[in-house]
Amino acid sequence: MASFVRTIPEGDDRERLTCADCGFVAYENPKIVVGSVVAVDGQVMLCRRAIEPRRGFWTLPAGYMEMAETVEEGARREAWEEARARIALEGVLAVYSIARIGQVQVIFRAGLAEPGFEAGPESLEVRLFDWAEIPWGEIAFPSVHWALRRWRESLGAPLGAPATNPPEDARGTSPMEGSAL
Amino acid sequence: MASFVRTIPEGDDRERLTCADCGFVAYENPKIVVGSVVAVDGQVMLCRRAIEPRRGFWTLPAGYMEMAETVEEGARREAWEEARARIALEGVLAVYSIARIGQVQVIFRAGLAEPGFEAGPESLEVRLFDWAEIPWGEIAFPSVHWALRRWRESLGAPLGAPATNPPEDARGTSPMEGSAL
Ligand SMILES: [Zn+2]
Ligand SMILES: [Zn+2]
Repeated sequence: MASFVRTIPEGDDRERLTCADCGFVAYENPKIVVGSVVAVDGQVMLCRRAIEPRRGFWTLPAGYMEMAETVEEGARREAWEEARARIALEGVLAVYSIARIGQVQVIFRAGLAEPGFEAGPESLEVRLFDWAEIPWGEIAFPSVHWALRRWRESLGAPLGAPATNPPEDARGTSPMEGSAL
Repeated sequence: MASFVRTIPEGDDRERLTCADCGFVAYENPKIVVGSVVAVDGQVMLCRRAIEPRRGFWTLPAGYMEMAETVEEGARREAWEEARARIALEGVLAVYSIARIGQVQVIFRAGLAEPGFEAGPESLEVRLFDWAEIPWGEIAFPSVHWALRRWRESLGAPLGAPATNPPEDARGTSPMEGSAL
């Protein structure tokens, strides 16, 4: 297997992960997570994770964007993969930066395009929660808290400019919890 | 140098670029471009590109996001690198997907935080344009047109939900022009 070292490639201005065997430069770019707060009759959809990190904790239907898709297509794909839900997007709710792990999250506000949902392979369970029932102590990641609060604030009004990180973690550098959604 | 081939890694569900020599899987993820429509007294800032693609054409101060920064930090860094401008961000104006090249663009509405700007190393020239003066025939990329139109629509009102792709190029698949900003 390759061994990677950090060096500054010629013509570049910062260190990059470079294969010591063949010189391949693995440019590390921030990764994009796409996901949605899906609401049905005022209840929000959460998925209980079947995989690490944070197995057993609740999260939004969200995951890494793939090549050759749009953010909208990625958000719909993830809702299908994780919750077997066909969703209708209403607009961008939030754009979060998790600088600590090089991640940008584009979170939509959404509803169901067709009735029905169930756990996909990466979920143990998918449920709708009344706001008062949300298991805040069992939420997988800080950004899920942020997105849910933002969703709540956005109700009953046209969707304004998307939220960015809350002031208490403006750069997404808090060492809390796992990394990937 | 390494030779890369497309194969489906074990446990994955689609083809990835893999090093034929050492097996390194170069996961290709969509890349994030961060940039801004910077306005000063109703005029917008454009940079004439000193580099290919689209050398000599006008673009927004924008470029690839780096690891360990936020989208906001990236947008401010790019304004400094390309236009030697210290900018103040007002909010997210648009989130565009250029599916053809695996790119997501997060574009802010911004003003100057301090007076003054000049061409950075990747720009031949930086100028403010009245709306009526914008050289539409010499704009570098379709998404610059999109962002300028969206900026114009957003004036005099709180920033609403960010625009996404216009209907005529909903997936960013039009084969027009260059790729990177
Ligand atoms: Zn190698
Ligand atoms: Zn190799």
